[in-house]
Amino acid sequence: MEPIRHLVEAALYAEDLERAESFYRGVLGLPLVDKEPGRHLFFRVGESMLLIFRPEATLQGGGSVPPHGAHGPGHVALGVPADALEGWRERLQAHGIEVEQEQRWPRGGRSLYFRDPDGNSVELITPGCWGLPSGW
Amino acid sequence: MEPIRHLVEAALYAEDLERAESFYRGVLGLPLVDKEPGRHLFFRVGESMLLIFRPEATLQGGGSVPPHGAHGPGHVALGVPADALEGWRERLQAHGIEVEQEQRWPRGGRSLYFRDPDGNSVELITPGCWGLPSGW
Repeated sequence: MEPIRHLVEAALYAEDLERAESFYRGVLGLPLVDKEPGRHLFFRVGESMLLIFRPEATLQGGGSVPPHGAHGPGHVALGVPADALEGWRERLQAHGIEVEQEQRWPRGGRSLYFRDPDGNSVELITPGCWGLPSGW
Repeated sequence: MEPIRHLVEAALYAEDLERAESFYRGVLGLPLVDKEPGRHLFFRVGESMLLIFRPEATLQGGGSVPPHGAHGPGHVALGVPADALEGWRERLQAHGIEVEQEQRWPRGGRSLYFRDPDGNSVELITPGCWGLPSGW
């Protein structure tokens, strides 16, 4: 069997997509690829996509994709180069976003955790984790 | 600002991790990187990670990472080569997993959607979507 080779899409859920756009596009600088007001925001993250959905819209059936939609804080980790992490810390601080927790990983990676406006746990992580390839 | 370059981790939530392991490791063939019974399963997906958490465990604070945990069907898309999709369809069928929906995308990619045992919407997608690099 040809194995699964790539994580193409991750999804998070948000009640207020305008507020989420300010965060993911404005603060985190992710390129917005597609937007349907009241339903979704789709961002490019390197060679993958981060999809933000409003669960009240996507839990309804009958669309072009099957219904889904979760409540409660989800999680995603986004990779930045090691020498960029301090700059990211300053940028978060400048936007009033509190770093909730930090970690150093056994293989040398470091993580900053903070919340998006809906309470999702977002992590910025540097290479040196999970045995993944050493650079991004 | 050095941009965010990589989607490192996506998370889904499951109530029964044994059942989830049978699905993600047994049926989808993802390599299991870490397992904490009752709390999580961590799978490698190419150069990224798919994390499956039991929300009752991860919503509690005081751990090495901030609390998180969602309820309701989440979503993830996993990439397979175009010529592998029919083999994957047969494999799902052999395991009694129903393909809920299919899609062909304008750029040539194709998707099969099905559910994991907790109802999360899992998608197998071939290259030719979102303007992402053409192969995986």
